[in-house]
Amino acid sequence: MSALLEPGAPRAAGLTDDRAVLQAMLDVEAAWVRVQRRLGVVTDAVVDVVAAACVAGEHDAEQIGAQAEGGGNPVIPMLASLRERVRVQSGPRHDHSDVVVGATDSASSDAAAAIHRGLTSQDVVDTAVMLLVARAGKELSEQLQGAADAAARLAVEHRDTVQVARTLGQPALPTTFGLKAAGWLGALDDVIDELARVRRALPVQCGGAAGTLAAVDALVPGRSAQAAALLADELRLTDPGRPWHTDRGPMTRVGDCLVRAADAMGKVATDVVTLSRAEIAEVHEPSGDGRGGSSTLPQKRNPVLSVLVRGVAIEAPHLGATLHSAAGLAVDERPDGAWHAEWGAVLRLLRRVVVAASQTRELLSGLEVDADAMRRNVDAVGPALVAERLLREVARLPEGESAVTALRPALVGGARAKHLIPLLRAHLPEQVLPDAAIADLLDPTHYLGAAADLVDRAVDHHRGRGDTHAHVSTDRGGAA
Amino acid sequence: MSALLEPGAPRAAGLTDDRAVLQAMLDVEAAWVRVQRRLGVVTDAVVDVVAAACVAGEHDAEQIGAQAEGGGNPVIPMLASLRERVRVQSGPRHDHSDVVVGATDSASSDAAAAIHRGLTSQDVVDTAVMLLVARAGKELSEQLQGAADAAARLAVEHRDTVQVARTLGQPALPTTFGLKAAGWLGALDDVIDELARVRRALPVQCGGAAGTLAAVDALVPGRSAQAAALLADELRLTDPGRPWHTDRGPMTRVGDCLVRAADAMGKVATDVVTLSRAEIAEVHEPSGDGRGGSSTLPQKRNPVLSVLVRGVAIEAPHLGATLHSAAGLAVDERPDGAWHAEWGAVLRLLRRVVVAASQTRELLSGLEVDADAMRRNVDAVGPALVAERLLREVARLPEGESAVTALRPALVGGARAKHLIPLLRAHLPEQVLPDAAIADLLDPTHYLGAAADLVDRAVDHHRGRGDTHAHVSTDRGGAA
Amino acid sequence: MSALLEPGAPRAAGLTDDRAVLQAMLDVEAAWVRVQRRLGVVTDAVVDVVAAACVAGEHDAEQIGAQAEGGGNPVIPMLASLRERVRVQSGPRHDHSDVVVGATDSASSDAAAAIHRGLTSQDVVDTAVMLLVARAGKELSEQLQGAADAAARLAVEHRDTVQVARTLGQPALPTTFGLKAAGWLGALDDVIDELARVRRALPVQCGGAAGTLAAVDALVPGRSAQAAALLADELRLTDPGRPWHTDRGPMTRVGDCLVRAADAMGKVATDVVTLSRAEIAEVHEPSGDGRGGSSTLPQKRNPVLSVLVRGVAIEAPHLGATLHSAAGLAVDERPDGAWHAEWGAVLRLLRRVVVAASQTRELLSGLEVDADAMRRNVDAVGPALVAERLLREVARLPEGESAVTALRPALVGGARAKHLIPLLRAHLPEQVLPDAAIADLLDPTHYLGAAADLVDRAVDHHRGRGDTHAHVSTDRGGAA
Amino acid sequence: MSALLEPGAPRAAGLTDDRAVLQAMLDVEAAWVRVQRRLGVVTDAVVDVVAAACVAGEHDAEQIGAQAEGGGNPVIPMLASLRERVRVQSGPRHDHSDVVVGATDSASSDAAAAIHRGLTSQDVVDTAVMLLVARAGKELSEQLQGAADAAARLAVEHRDTVQVARTLGQPALPTTFGLKAAGWLGALDDVIDELARVRRALPVQCGGAAGTLAAVDALVPGRSAQAAALLADELRLTDPGRPWHTDRGPMTRVGDCLVRAADAMGKVATDVVTLSRAEIAEVHEPSGDGRGGSSTLPQKRNPVLSVLVRGVAIEAPHLGATLHSAAGLAVDERPDGAWHAEWGAVLRLLRRVVVAASQTRELLSGLEVDADAMRRNVDAVGPALVAERLLREVARLPEGESAVTALRPALVGGARAKHLIPLLRAHLPEQVLPDAAIADLLDPTHYLGAAADLVDRAVDHHRGRGDTHAHVSTDRGGAA
Repeated sequence: MSALLEPGAPRAAGLTDDRAVLQAMLDVEAAWVRVQRRLGVVTDAVVDVVAAACVAGEHDAEQIGAQAEGGGNPVIPMLASLRERVRVQSGPRHDHSDVVVGATDSASSDAAAAIHRGLTSQDVVDTAVMLLVARAGKELSEQLQGAADAAARLAVEHRDTVQVARTLGQPALPTTFGLKAAGWLGALDDVIDELARVRRALPVQCGGAAGTLAAVDALVPGRSAQAAALLADELRLTDPGRPWHTDRGPMTRVGDCLVRAADAMGKVATDVVTLSRAEIAEVHEPSGDGRGGSSTLPQKRNPVLSVLVRGVAIEAPHLGATLHSAAGLAVDERPDGAWHAEWGAVLRLLRRVVVAASQTRELLSGLEVDADAMRRNVDAVGPALVAERLLREVARLPEGESAVTALRPALVGGARAKHLIPLLRAHLPEQVLPDAAIADLLDPTHYLGAAADLVDRAVDHHRGRGDTHAHVSTDRGGAA
Repeated sequence: MSALLEPGAPRAAGLTDDRAVLQAMLDVEAAWVRVQRRLGVVTDAVVDVVAAACVAGEHDAEQIGAQAEGGGNPVIPMLASLRERVRVQSGPRHDHSDVVVGATDSASSDAAAAIHRGLTSQDVVDTAVMLLVARAGKELSEQLQGAADAAARLAVEHRDTVQVARTLGQPALPTTFGLKAAGWLGALDDVIDELARVRRALPVQCGGAAGTLAAVDALVPGRSAQAAALLADELRLTDPGRPWHTDRGPMTRVGDCLVRAADAMGKVATDVVTLSRAEIAEVHEPSGDGRGGSSTLPQKRNPVLSVLVRGVAIEAPHLGATLHSAAGLAVDERPDGAWHAEWGAVLRLLRRVVVAASQTRELLSGLEVDADAMRRNVDAVGPALVAERLLREVARLPEGESAVTALRPALVGGARAKHLIPLLRAHLPEQVLPDAAIADLLDPTHYLGAAADLVDRAVDHHRGRGDTHAHVSTDRGGAA
Repeated sequence: MSALLEPGAPRAAGLTDDRAVLQAMLDVEAAWVRVQRRLGVVTDAVVDVVAAACVAGEHDAEQIGAQAEGGGNPVIPMLASLRERVRVQSGPRHDHSDVVVGATDSASSDAAAAIHRGLTSQDVVDTAVMLLVARAGKELSEQLQGAADAAARLAVEHRDTVQVARTLGQPALPTTFGLKAAGWLGALDDVIDELARVRRALPVQCGGAAGTLAAVDALVPGRSAQAAALLADELRLTDPGRPWHTDRGPMTRVGDCLVRAADAMGKVATDVVTLSRAEIAEVHEPSGDGRGGSSTLPQKRNPVLSVLVRGVAIEAPHLGATLHSAAGLAVDERPDGAWHAEWGAVLRLLRRVVVAASQTRELLSGLEVDADAMRRNVDAVGPALVAERLLREVARLPEGESAVTALRPALVGGARAKHLIPLLRAHLPEQVLPDAAIADLLDPTHYLGAAADLVDRAVDHHRGRGDTHAHVSTDRGGAA
Repeated sequence: MSALLEPGAPRAAGLTDDRAVLQAMLDVEAAWVRVQRRLGVVTDAVVDVVAAACVAGEHDAEQIGAQAEGGGNPVIPMLASLRERVRVQSGPRHDHSDVVVGATDSASSDAAAAIHRGLTSQDVVDTAVMLLVARAGKELSEQLQGAADAAARLAVEHRDTVQVARTLGQPALPTTFGLKAAGWLGALDDVIDELARVRRALPVQCGGAAGTLAAVDALVPGRSAQAAALLADELRLTDPGRPWHTDRGPMTRVGDCLVRAADAMGKVATDVVTLSRAEIAEVHEPSGDGRGGSSTLPQKRNPVLSVLVRGVAIEAPHLGATLHSAAGLAVDERPDGAWHAEWGAVLRLLRRVVVAASQTRELLSGLEVDADAMRRNVDAVGPALVAERLLREVARLPEGESAVTALRPALVGGARAKHLIPLLRAHLPEQVLPDAAIADLLDPTHYLGAAADLVDRAVDHHRGRGDTHAHVSTDRGGAA
C-alpha cells in the first residue's frame, strides 16, 4: 500500500498487500494438503503440520519477494520457506508439562513431500488471486450495498424534490433529485448483482504443470477431477471443470465487473462534483474529519471524496483493459508474459475499487441535499424548462400555432412567466386557455412525467433483493 | 467500411455501415409509431405511412451525415428527411389503373406529428445501436458456433494425438493436441454463452428528453412504462425498466462481451501462428483462395487468418476500454461528450469481432494438423518431457534417491533414452525397476494425466448445448 | 468515412478514406520507380508509364479491398491492378492528330517489372501511412494554428477580465479569463511544435522482404542505402537510416503526438462545456448554422462543438495506446498481427483529431465571452475569493491574529463585504487598517498576481513563432 | 513495493516507494525556502531550520498517508508534520559542550511561516513527481544504456552470423543475428535519446492556489516569474514559463517516453522468448542465480527475464493511456479527479520500466547465442530461403522463364538443393548458368543485402553518442 499518493488506501488495508497475497498462497497450499487427506493419501498429522506452517506471519514475505524473480513468480521461494518451516516445526517441542509434542519427523517429511504435490505455480498464484478477489469482493459488496442503501434513502426522501434536468450541460426539463438518486441506485444495484454472480463463480485453478493434471492423476489415478472439486470445496471457490491456465475468461470477468463498479461510482461522483459547484450548490459532500480542506484556502470545502472516486473511474478502464490485453495473448499451455501482466492490474483494480466504494458509501450516506437551491435553479431557468410541454399544448389549441410562433423566440430569449402570460393572452382568450391552465402549464412540478414511478420502481427493486445479497455476503468469500 | 486497411471487412458487410445505422434508426422510429398505434393514439394509416418512409434506401445517408454535427448526432437531419418523405408520399399517386392511392393528407400530417413524438435523440441512437448489436450479434453467434464446432471436431479427432505442452515457451510435459483444441473449445463456448446472455438482455432506450418520460406520459398518461415495454416488444429487444441515458452498463456489457470473444480468438490465433512456425510445423492454416501469399516470396505460406485475428485481439481491449472510460463520466441526464465517444468504439468493435469470428471459423474448419510432426517434436525433446514423472517414480524406489541424483543433470543436459537407461541400470537392478517399467516411464503417451477426460468433458459440454443456442440463433436479433 | 455516427467527419473528407489510402500506396510505388530512374535502372518512359497508372481513380478500390485478406494487406491486389493498368495503357492509343502515342510495349513490360521491385508490402503500407500522416498533419497543423490564433485573441482581449478561478470545482481565487485562454494557447502551441517535429521526421519504410534490403542491393549493388534516401526525397519524407519493420517508434511517435493534440483540445472543450452551464453562463459557443439544436427542445443551445471535441478526447488515448500495444509485440522481422492492429487505430486517430481541431478552431474563433457574467460570479463568491490575501495581510497587523480568528468562520460562512468590514473594524482601528486598505484587500482585481504577465508571455511566445510554422505549413506534407 | 506479485521490484528499490515520495515532497518544500532566501525574504537560519526538518526519516510517512484523504492529497498532513518538526527542533538543544545550539525560537517561527508560503499542494506534488521521474530517469537511462551497449556488442560479434529472417512467423530470407541485434540497438538508442530530451525538460510546477502566482507575487512583488526559475534551479529541473496545473503535457510526455522504452524492450523480449523455443533454440537467456527455474520441472530453463519484460510491455501502454485520459479532462484551474488518476499510473509506470530496463540489460549482457543452431535452421529451410533471388536471377537468363516455371512448385514444396540443381540443369546448360553460379545463388550468406552495412551504421551511431549521454547521466537527476 503506497498510501501517500493513493489517498484512502487504508480503507482497503490488508486486502491486497504482500501479507494478504502470501496468506492466500499459503491457504491454497494448506487446502491442497487437506484435499490429499480427503483423497486418502496423507494423514491428519500431515494436515496439521502443514496447517501450522501456512501462516503468513511465520514467513519472511520480503525475502520471498526478493527471490520471486528467479522463477518469474513467488511460488518457488514460498515453497522453500514453507518446507523449511515444516522442518523446523518437526524438531522436538515441549508443552508446559514437559511432554514432547509437535509433529513427528515422519509427519514432517511426509508434509514436505505432500506440499504442492501435483500442482504448478500457476495453480497456486491463480487460485490465490481468486481468493483475494473473494475476500476483497466481500468487502466491496458490503460497501456497494451500503452505498446503494444510501442512494435508496436519498431517492425516497427526494422523490418529489424538483430539480433541473441537464443534458449536454444545459437545462432541459424538470426532473427530481429522487430520480437522479434512483438512477445511481439502479446502476449500483446492477453492479452488486453482477458482483454476486462473479463471486459465486470464482474458480480454483488446478491443472498441474501443463494443464493435464498428470501429476495429480499419478497421485490418485482416475480421480484428478475429484481433486479439483475438493480444492474448490476447501476454499469455497468453484470448480470450473477444466484448467484455465491459458483461458483467462475468469480473470477478465473479475476485471470487467470491477470496472463496471468504478463506472457506476464515477457517474455518482461526477454528478456530485458538478452539483457541488458554487454556482449550482445543490448538494454538498459530508464535511467533518478534515474532509475537503485546502492547503492554503481555509474557506474552501472541496468535494474531495467525489474527486477521489472520479480518479478511480478514470484509471479503472485501463486496468481492466490490461487484463484483456493479456488474455488475448495467452499462448501455449502458459502465457509467456501475458500472465505476469495481470497481477499488478488485478490487485490494483481490486484495491482502488474497494476504496472508491467505501468513499462512495460515505459520500452518499452523508450527502447534504439543498432542495431550496434546486428549486431556486429551477426557477432561474424559468418557463424555458417547460417549453416542451408548453409549446406542444398551446399548439393544439385553436389559433395555437400563431401563439407558438410568438412564444418560441421569447423562450429562446429566456423570457420569464410575467412576460409570457400577456404574450399568451394576446393570442388566446381566457375561454380557450384559462388562467389556471396557464399556471398549470408553467409549473415545473406538473411536468415530471414518470419520475415518481421510476423512483418507486428502483427503490422497490432494491428492497426486494436484500435477502439474496445478505446470503451471499455471509456465505462466500473464501476461507477466512 | 474501409476495406483497404481492414482486411476481411467484407465479411461484416452491411452490419455497421451508414446504411445499416440509418436503417436501425428508422426501424426505431417506425416501431415507435406502431407502439403509438397499440396505445391507441394513431391510426393504422399513420403506421403505414411511416413504415413506407422508414426505408434507408429512400433517404440520403450522406447528407444526413453531413448535417449530423449541428445537433451533435444524426437524429435531427434524419427526422427532417423522414418528415419530408412522409409529406412527399402524401401527394396524389396513381397505380397503374389510374386510381389515386397513397396516404391521405391527413394521415400524412398525423404521421409527421407522430414521428419521434415523446422521444429524444438519445432514445433513437441508443436503441438503434442495440439493434445493430442484435443483428451483428446474431451473425457473430453463428460464426463463433461454427468455430466452436470446428474446435470440437479437432478435439475429438486428436483426442489422443500426443504433443509437447509448452510453458513460457519451453517444453514442459506431454499433452495432446485434442486437449489444446478442447481448451479453445471451452473458451469459445463460454463466450457463446455470454453472448447469448447479452443478446437476450439488449435494452431499448426510452426516456424522453430528460429521462422522465414526461412527453410520453403526456401522450398516454400513466402508461409511459407500458410504452417502453411495447417498444421493446416491437423491436424484439428488452425493457430495462428504466432509462439508461447516463447508466451505461448496457453498453459496456456489450463491449466487454465482444472483447472476451476477441480474447478467446486471440488465444487460438496465437497458438496457430506459433505452431505454424517452420521449426515447429505442427499445424498449417487452410490454404487456397490466395490465402497466405506474399508480395515477393512465392514459396511462403503465411498464417494470414491467424495474423489478422491476432490484430483484432490486440486492438479490441482498447475499444472496450473506451466504452468504460465513457461510462464513468456520464454526467447529469445526458453525458457531455462521453456518449459521443461510444459510437465509433462500439461499431468498430462489433465489426472487427464479427470479422475475426468468421476468420477463426475458417481457420479452425480447415486447420491442417500434422500429428507426425507433433510426435517428432515430442521425441526431439526426449526423456526430459517426462522428467516430472520419471524423477518422482524413481525417487520412491529403494536407492532411488541416488538414481535421481544421477538423473537430474542428465535430464538438464538433454540426455536421450539410450543414455538414461544404462544410467538407471547403474543404480537400480532389474528386479527393482524392470525394463518394462523403464519403457513405461519413458513413454510420453503414458503421462497424459486426465487429458482424454478433459477432452471428452469439453466436447460433451459443447454438444449438450446445441439446442439452446440454435433457439437463440433463430429467435433473437431484432426486427429483421 | 461513417458520417452518421461520426459527426463532423466531413471536416476530414478525403484524408483517410479508401481512395486516399490507395493514392498514397500508388504514390509510393510511383516514387519508387522514379528512384529507380535516378539510380539509372529504368528509363524515363518507364517512369511515365507507371506515373500514368498510379492514379487512384483508375483502380477499383473496393475490389482491391475485397482481395486484401489473402495476403493480409492490400498490396498484392493493388499490384495486380497496377500491372494490369500498365499493360492496358501500353495498347496503341492515338492522339487527335492520329499519331500513335502512349507507352511502347517495351516500356510497359519494363514498367511491370520495375514496379515494386525490391520492396515488400510493409514498405508500401508503412510509407503510405506516413504519407497520409503528412497530408492530414498539414491540415491538422493549420487547424491547430487557427485555434491557437483564436485563443491568443481571446487572451489579449480578456487580459484583464476578472473571473473566478476554480479548483476541484470550487471557487478558489480571482483570475482572468485571459489567463485561462493563455493556458489553452500555451498547450496548443506546445502541441503545434511537437506536431512540427513529428512531421519533419516522418520516415519512409524501405527494407525489402526481410529488412536487409537484399533485393534492392541486388538491383543497385552497394547503393541500397542511397535508394532509401532517394525515396524519402521523392516523397518529401525522411530517411530514418534503417528499416523499422519491427521498431514501431515512428508509429507511436505519431500516435502520441495526435493524442496530445486531443488532450489539449479536450481541456478547452471541457472548460467551455463547464463555463457554458446555465448557472455559470460565462461563455457561449458560437451559434448559427443549426449548431446546438435539440430534437425536442427548441430553446436549447447546446455546446455541441465542445461536446464532440470531448468525445474525441475521451476516445483518443485508447487509440494511441493501441499503437503502443502493437509496438511492444513486434516479433521477428515483421510483426505477426501487431502490425495489422495499427492501421485502424492510426487512421481513426488521424481523422478524429483533424476533425476535433477544426471544431476547436471554430469554437474558439466564435466563442462568446460574457465578461459581465464573469464579474457577477466573482461578486457572488464575495470576500471568500480573496480570503488567502485578506487573512495573510490582516495576520501581519498588530492584533491581526485576533481579527483573523474572527474572520475565518465568517469567510467559511460566506460572509459578504458589508458584514466583514464591521468585523474587521471591531478588531482593527482605522489607523492600523485604513478604509482604503480594506477596499483594496477586498477587491478581487487587486489579487491577480502575475496573471497579466503570464498572458503577455504566452501571447508573445505565440506571435514569435509564426514564421517557423508558416514555413512548415507550406514546405511539408508529402507529394501532393 | 509489492514484491510478491511484482517480480524484480527490488531492482527499483527506493525510487517510488512512500519514503521516496515523501522525500521528494520535502525536497520541494526545502528548495522553496532556499528560493525565498535567494529572494531575500528569509534568513539563512530559516533555511537551515527547514533543511534539517526536511528529511523523510524524521516523519511518519504512514500517518501522513493515512491523513492524505482529507484534502485529497498528502500535502496538508505533510505540512503539519513538517511544521511540528520545525517547532520541536527549536526547543533548546545542547551539544556535548553544553552550549545551546539549534534554531532560535524566532528562526523556528519564521520557518513555520515560510514553509509552503505561496505554493499550493499541486505545486508540491507535481514538482515532487518530476523529481521522482528525474531520479528514476537517471537510473533508467543507465540501465537502458547498459542494455544498448550489450546489444551493440551482440551486433558486432554476430555481424556476419547468418540467421533465418522470419515474417509473419515464417522463414522469408536470410539475415544476420547481428542485424537483429542492431535493430534492438537502434530502438534502444532512440529511446535513450528521447529519455534524455524528456529529462532535460522536466518542469517545476509553480503557480500558487489558482495558477496566478498571486501569493508569490504578494511575497516578492513583480518577481514571481523569477521565483519559479529559482525553484527550477534549486531542484535542477526546468522552468516551463507558466503553471501547468491543467496543461498536463509534461506528464504525458514522461509517460509516453516510458511506454516507448517498454515497447523497445518488449520487442527484444519477444524475440528472445521466440528464439529460445526448444525447436528454434538459437539463443538462451543467461542462467545462474536460480534464473528460469520451475516449481516442478527441474530440467526446464525458462526465459524468465524476457517473460517478465514482456509482462511490462503488455501493461505499460495502459498506464501511459491513463495519463492521457486524465490530461484531456483537466477542467478549470485544477482537475477534479483527473489529476488524482495520474499518480498511481505514473509511479507504477516508472517503477515497472526501470525494472524492465534492468532485466533487459541483464538479459542482453548475458545472452547466449548459438550461431550453429542459427545456421542449422537456415539449412533446414533450404533453397526456399533464397527463392527471391534464385527466381529473379534465373528469370533473366535465356530460357529462364521455363526454368522458373519448374522451380516455383519445387520451392513451394520445400525442395532441397540436391533436387533443385538437376532441375535447373534440365532447363539451363552449364554455359548459361555455370555450377559456380548455382552454388552462389543457393548460398544464403550471399544474399544478405545491406545487413552488414546496417549493423555498422547502427553501431557507429551508438558509439558516436556516448559522451552526450554520459554528460546527461552525471549532470541531471534533481537534487540528490
